[in-house]
Amino acid sequence: MAEDTMTLVLIRHGESEWNKQNLFTGWADVDLSDAGRQEAREGAAALKEAGYDFDLCYTSYLKRAIHTLQIVLDGLDRAWLPVVKSWRLNERHYGALQGLNKSETAAKYGEDQVRIWRRSFDTRPPALEPGDERDAHGCAAYRGLDPADVPYAECLKDNIARTWPYFQEEILPQMKAGKRVLIAAHGNSLRSLVKQFDGLGEDEIVSLNIPTGVPLVYTFDKDMNVLSKEYLGDPAVIEAKINKVANQGKAK
Amino acid sequence: MAEDTMTLVLIRHGESEWNKQNLFTGWADVDLSDAGRQEAREGAAALKEAGYDFDLCYTSYLKRAIHTLQIVLDGLDRAWLPVVKSWRLNERHYGALQGLNKSETAAKYGEDQVRIWRRSFDTRPPALEPGDERDAHGCAAYRGLDPADVPYAECLKDNIARTWPYFQEEILPQMKAGKRVLIAAHGNSLRSLVKQFDGLGEDEIVSLNIPTGVPLVYTFDKDMNVLSKEYLGDPAVIEAKINKVANQGKAK
Repeated sequence: MAEDTMTLVLIRHGESEWNKQNLFTGWADVDLSDAGRQEAREGAAALKEAGYDFDLCYTSYLKRAIHTLQIVLDGLDRAWLPVVKSWRLNERHYGALQGLNKSETAAKYGEDQVRIWRRSFDTRPPALEPGDERDAHGCAAYRGLDPADVPYAECLKDNIARTWPYFQEEILPQMKAGKRVLIAAHGNSLRSLVKQFDGLGEDEIVSLNIPTGVPLVYTFDKDMNVLSKEYLGDPAVIEAKINKVANQGKAK
Repeated sequence: MAEDTMTLVLIRHGESEWNKQNLFTGWADVDLSDAGRQEAREGAAALKEAGYDFDLCYTSYLKRAIHTLQIVLDGLDRAWLPVVKSWRLNERHYGALQGLNKSETAAKYGEDQVRIWRRSFDTRPPALEPGDERDAHGCAAYRGLDPADVPYAECLKDNIARTWPYFQEEILPQMKAGKRVLIAAHGNSLRSLVKQFDGLGEDEIVSLNIPTGVPLVYTFDKDMNVLSKEYLGDPAVIEAKINKVANQGKAK
């Protein structure tokens, strides 16, 4: 890597127990499935084979991302690397859809409505009622936050409003200081970052899907212009994973 | 817990692959055995049953301690807690003994000599030669350190010289700020702290052994006077674990 460029690697967590059941997850703190752990090991192997190393890692407060990162670091023999966890990298909060089946929801409300809830830039899914057993205000993980920061539902625009300032204020200064950064996070918190990196419009981000467990390598110049963007792995496997994500909201 | 007291929990990693083979380990970065992972789960269960919670965790750069902490946090559903890793909490560096069998070394040099190397306060084991394949100067984990800080062998006094300032400068201020701290570390890095906490003399620390995977709960007043000290778990199991550690240096 040239001295005047910065490299950043993003990795979306592998399949979770709820992904497997095709349930809306959001802030529900479900763990990786065995297949998801295997995806993380494969992501680590791709990074290792390509010779990547890191100085600093970020992840969310959700165990499917935390465990993905731990598996990747173990695979790279880098368990000792510093890891910063932030709720700001959490998945988009799916509101009252959390725990519902995506196909059943599509059958009930129509695929178009589900596509809007899944991919609209600024339409929120229905909000959780305060005090709902799924309300994150009751979770120990968020006890240190200003309650006003804890959402009842989020659209992608809401997600960007918390991930992008965190990236700019916390992560980017580390990159500018020469740190090689790895971020393990979620479909929508990573789409938020990718939208900003790639300067995508609200219409363009709707159709962008990020495959699970596949390292996405960005190279930037010092002004954060994208010099290159590349998934590490077999292109056919990556394409199949992207299509799988895109098809989850279909009625069957 | 009263407002004017501070609680700190220490946990020594469970059995590693080299503990199982009765090898001197030190800074060799060997992983937990299956039994060690089970010990960590049992430690987590004891903490959960007794109702402990934490705000901040510390561990070393060695994966047997890092993984112990990860298992404990998973058991407490606290994977999201902040974890600070520091080489200053690493096990004592065992010098040229690293990788040698404890019983074979006792048969060769005598149990008395091995007891001195294992438990003497200020006698270092034989040092590694610089450039030895076991020399930590060649490890990626220590690439950010001043090479003068990376040891070739350590006695307990050397270990205290790095763990105690770290505790006082980094950990204690967090405790004084009200944070409930959990430290997952090693036999000798924890003995270093315990010696200081308990005000033990150089003769007294020689015979102190810390059982693996058993939470050790300290309560202090604001001046770091020990108000209570307690292992969580079955006293008979704890006693057996302490004796097992003490007997490792015997010839057979």
